[in-house]
Amino acid sequence: MCTLIIHELSQPHFLKRLRIALTLYPPLVLVLAIFFAVATAIAALSSPLPHPLDPLSPTELTAVRSAVLAFSLVASRPISFHYVGLDEPEKPDVLSHTNADAAAILPRRAFVIARAGGLSHEFYVDVTNTSAVRVVSHGIHDGPGFPMFTTEKQVAAGQLSREYPPFRESLQRRGLALTDVGCGVFSMEWFGKNEARRLAKVQCFIVAGGTANYYARPLEGVTLLVDVEKLVIVAYRDRAAYSVPKAEGTDYRAGKAGPPFNGAVPAPGVVVQPEGKGFHIDGHIVRWANWEFHVGFDMRAGTVISMASVHDADADLWRRVLYRGFASEIFVPYMDPEEEWYFHTFMDAGEYGLGVSAVPLQPEADYPANAAYMDGYYVDADGKPVKSENIICVFEITEVRPDVTLVVRMVVTVGNYDYTLDWEFKTIGSIKTVVSLSGILEMKATNYTHVDQIRDDIHGTLIAENTVDVYHDHFITYHFDLDIDGTKNSFIKNTIIPKHNTGVRATSGAPTPRRSYWTVLYEVAETEAEGQVNINGAPADLLFVNSSKKTKVGNEVGYRLIPAGATATSLLANNDYPQRRASYTKKQVWVTPYNKSEK
Amino acid sequence: MCTLIIHELSQPHFLKRLRIALTLYPPLVLVLAIFFAVATAIAALSSPLPHPLDPLSPTELTAVRSAVLAFSLVASRPISFHYVGLDEPEKPDVLSHTNADAAAILPRRAFVIARAGGLSHEFYVDVTNTSAVRVVSHGIHDGPGFPMFTTEKQVAAGQLSREYPPFRESLQRRGLALTDVGCGVFSMEWFGKNEARRLAKVQCFIVAGGTANYYARPLEGVTLLVDVEKLVIVAYRDRAAYSVPKAEGTDYRAGKAGPPFNGAVPAPGVVVQPEGKGFHIDGHIVRWANWEFHVGFDMRAGTVISMASVHDADADLWRRVLYRGFASEIFVPYMDPEEEWYFHTFMDAGEYGLGVSAVPLQPEADYPANAAYMDGYYVDADGKPVKSENIICVFEITEVRPDVTLVVRMVVTVGNYDYTLDWEFKTIGSIKTVVSLSGILEMKATNYTHVDQIRDDIHGTLIAENTVDVYHDHFITYHFDLDIDGTKNSFIKNTIIPKHNTGVRATSGAPTPRRSYWTVLYEVAETEAEGQVNINGAPADLLFVNSSKKTKVGNEVGYRLIPAGATATSLLANNDYPQRRASYTKKQVWVTPYNKSEK
Repeated sequence: MCTLIIHELSQPHFLKRLRIALTLYPPLVLVLAIFFAVATAIAALSSPLPHPLDPLSPTELTAVRSAVLAFSLVASRPISFHYVGLDEPEKPDVLSHTNADAAAILPRRAFVIARAGGLSHEFYVDVTNTSAVRVVSHGIHDGPGFPMFTTEKQVAAGQLSREYPPFRESLQRRGLALTDVGCGVFSMEWFGKNEARRLAKVQCFIVAGGTANYYARPLEGVTLLVDVEKLVIVAYRDRAAYSVPKAEGTDYRAGKAGPPFNGAVPAPGVVVQPEGKGFHIDGHIVRWANWEFHVGFDMRAGTVISMASVHDADADLWRRVLYRGFASEIFVPYMDPEEEWYFHTFMDAGEYGLGVSAVPLQPEADYPANAAYMDGYYVDADGKPVKSENIICVFEITEVRPDVTLVVRMVVTVGNYDYTLDWEFKTIGSIKTVVSLSGILEMKATNYTHVDQIRDDIHGTLIAENTVDVYHDHFITYHFDLDIDGTKNSFIKNTIIPKHNTGVRATSGAPTPRRSYWTVLYEVAETEAEGQVNINGAPADLLFVNSSKKTKVGNEVGYRLIPAGATATSLLANNDYPQRRASYTKKQVWVTPYNKSEK
Repeated sequence: MCTLIIHELSQPHFLKRLRIALTLYPPLVLVLAIFFAVATAIAALSSPLPHPLDPLSPTELTAVRSAVLAFSLVASRPISFHYVGLDEPEKPDVLSHTNADAAAILPRRAFVIARAGGLSHEFYVDVTNTSAVRVVSHGIHDGPGFPMFTTEKQVAAGQLSREYPPFRESLQRRGLALTDVGCGVFSMEWFGKNEARRLAKVQCFIVAGGTANYYARPLEGVTLLVDVEKLVIVAYRDRAAYSVPKAEGTDYRAGKAGPPFNGAVPAPGVVVQPEGKGFHIDGHIVRWANWEFHVGFDMRAGTVISMASVHDADADLWRRVLYRGFASEIFVPYMDPEEEWYFHTFMDAGEYGLGVSAVPLQPEADYPANAAYMDGYYVDADGKPVKSENIICVFEITEVRPDVTLVVRMVVTVGNYDYTLDWEFKTIGSIKTVVSLSGILEMKATNYTHVDQIRDDIHGTLIAENTVDVYHDHFITYHFDLDIDGTKNSFIKNTIIPKHNTGVRATSGAPTPRRSYWTVLYEVAETEAEGQVNINGAPADLLFVNSSKKTKVGNEVGYRLIPAGATATSLLANNDYPQRRASYTKKQVWVTPYNKSEK
């Protein structure tokens, strides 16, 4: 797991790129290695049979729904589906499967999280034989926490205020009509109380005024507490009235925004590939240059890259690199302790779902002309499959040859934020994940119209009249299951150690005028504690190696983890509730042994 | 000045990108500002008259040579020219010039560093009127240090060993012929002794064996000490003999290297611009989208970007951003205290010259098809102009619109290393400098052929049989003279301050369950000491603002300095000689008030 963090002050509409890169290490001294597994897979994958890691098809999702609804031990109705995804087969089975007869399909299972009777149910459903789909395991989640929101309940909860007299009075006092406002669900997070009801906060925005950017126009000071499942208002608070920021100048839509977003755009450049695309997509398998990998989709994680292997031309063999990788969480704590803001400490993947929030990509705007795209399927609250079109695209970026990059892109819109999540592959063997943050700021209304009026901490920047951009962080976490040249991998920390004065000696024993140099301390992580790294500590190279595969001169074959962007640790107090939920944000790298249940 | 550092272990042939970015801050809330200066400049610049910052033309360089040779106060011969470049006019003159009549050319002056009679001479030569070019100022450099090497003396000094009997004996003992080896000059740097002679080390490589990569095959253990000016050998040392690494597998040339550099290259992508290039070059001025800037060339610094202004479409005015920016030094200390290696602590710009070392760019390989290029002129040791063709290129990278980037690129080859130095401009107003490191490692021969044999610190990584990649750093420093909306700029440090437990209060006074948040401490640098920043310290935003230009709500207009790559500080001891020369490498950012003489 690797978390990248930026502390965000106020840079509206500017793409901030957080990069982490996996780089082949050392790239030129790879040894020969035998990978029949992957080499054979290529032949097998051309068959119409699903790959063991293919996401569930609409047919499979429909069958899963029927099986859950028919499961006699859960009688409560309604059953609300919050997550349905592939329960991946055991890794050894997936690896050995690709060695075996293509006709031998691995058992296919779905993992389901559903709410019924005020409880969270977990189902495993066997869908191997679509004519005999059945629940093979059922359990009730025991403990605090809730699954992702469903879109349906979010929409319905946002409507609750409309018929609520105190809310109507609040609007009236502010001279607003019901049609002027729209409300949305904000997770209230955990602040020490374990609540059986699924409560959430509802906050509202002014949607009238001719701008699409209602996030710029909050109805500050008004908060509803709702039961999202029962769809009832539990509490209401109209703490104070604030000036509503103007609509003027806030619209971001093409044609509405001013320069430099419109206007000064130079003559268009178009990438053409006279010899055709360099990549080929076969089902969910992408093949490009010396790379082959599987692109999956998950309602929570979005894009999932699996079984990425690089071709070793010297040995004419495929060598495994990454068994599975995905964005596992995006934690976004805001830094305002005010009544309406303290709980704004979102977990975008776990609460809203990156896959569910993925938006259809717009040709030319979101990707270049030479791209191909893929669809994804998730389920609605009723368990029925929903097709999400054009949400993953694959394209090559050629600046100069041979430095061509293959990009797998998804854009996730969680509330006000757009995350462009890219996987970049290069022929030198590197994999890079790039997150570009865009979209709209979450803004707070204030009565201030000029910084000279400010006397207290407004917990943000006054970016326009009556508008504060509240300080916040984005902690984006990836899960990488590296299988470099096989599953026996070790984590190495090569720490740079300065040697000063009396410690300085030439190897030959000859005198030297140098009074310092640095050298490298090689350490293999033996425990999970040694697998935790603060990358802002002593300078170190973080390597993932396969100790059983050595180069000719005896170096281990591996990859290097390069944090190529701004990284930080969380500055929240260890005893603060959001920090206790996101305790992993105090270190950027956590290396643990493989355990399927700890995904 | 901003220094970016990587500690390099062993990643042969992999592009490492160090990025620093200047980002418009805050980009969407720019106020109106009046810039007649730049706006008027555009009309004036279309004239055939040189821009005040244009590099010296071949005609001017020739005239400078004549004037120096004719200068009666320096009688010693030969005179060796080490640097000739534009002595830029005073900044106020440049800024006011562009306001004035185009016919009023500013005085044009050259600055010359030449060696004669064992002394370093500094000349200022007036070249305004090419028929009356004359030395207007002459001084003798008083103190330690030498100007850049001339190419001619480097070549000649490298030949000295050929006729030197002890060297021939060393070769004979190793079974090598004279034609098997080639030698080069390595600056011996400063280790406490101030020497009047210009001494340097000469070290040699095996050039036979069918590989172009002679850096992989050092004649380890043999060092000559030479007087580079008198071209005599001062001392000779054959300390020990080592196995010469094999030539096999070391060649990097196209067609000689194996996959992934050859072979797995995908179908080519070509950027076409049906509506033509988006940029226009007029002399040394580049205009693109909402940007305008001057591209100069200097024998020491290479590409120089000046007077970069961005167009404010709302106000229809040009707003100044960067008065002048260039790579000012590349410090490369190696971490081996051995007799043949301790002095390998190069200053690539000051000793070898980035402009002199710039190499002609290869279409398709170094830049895409839609690029334009520029030439540069430097002088040889005799003072005569040398044309360096095709060394700067300008091109647009379009991944998707409107996110198009304009790139100004130069590739500098200093000895074994290739530095690709890019300036990237975006329409949102950002400027980014990108350095990509490539080329060949500086390798050390060893008798080891396997890591299991190693018992002591080899100060590097055994990357092939008999070959050690010696640990080293690259400290790349840029000089940025920012003039944001005018010359009155301040440096602001916005430090992120955590507030924990008792310090946590909601602005309204209402109780809050939050136990922590962070806020921002705004500090204006008042002294040069406060302008020094270790960016690995407390998280902070580094801003350069114009306090006299405020947004409507009172925020200062400015740019943010974003270190977007790996950054570190030097780990050398403060009392070590290389560190005393490069003492600036202990902090990454040094902000000082403008002083023309402190360029």
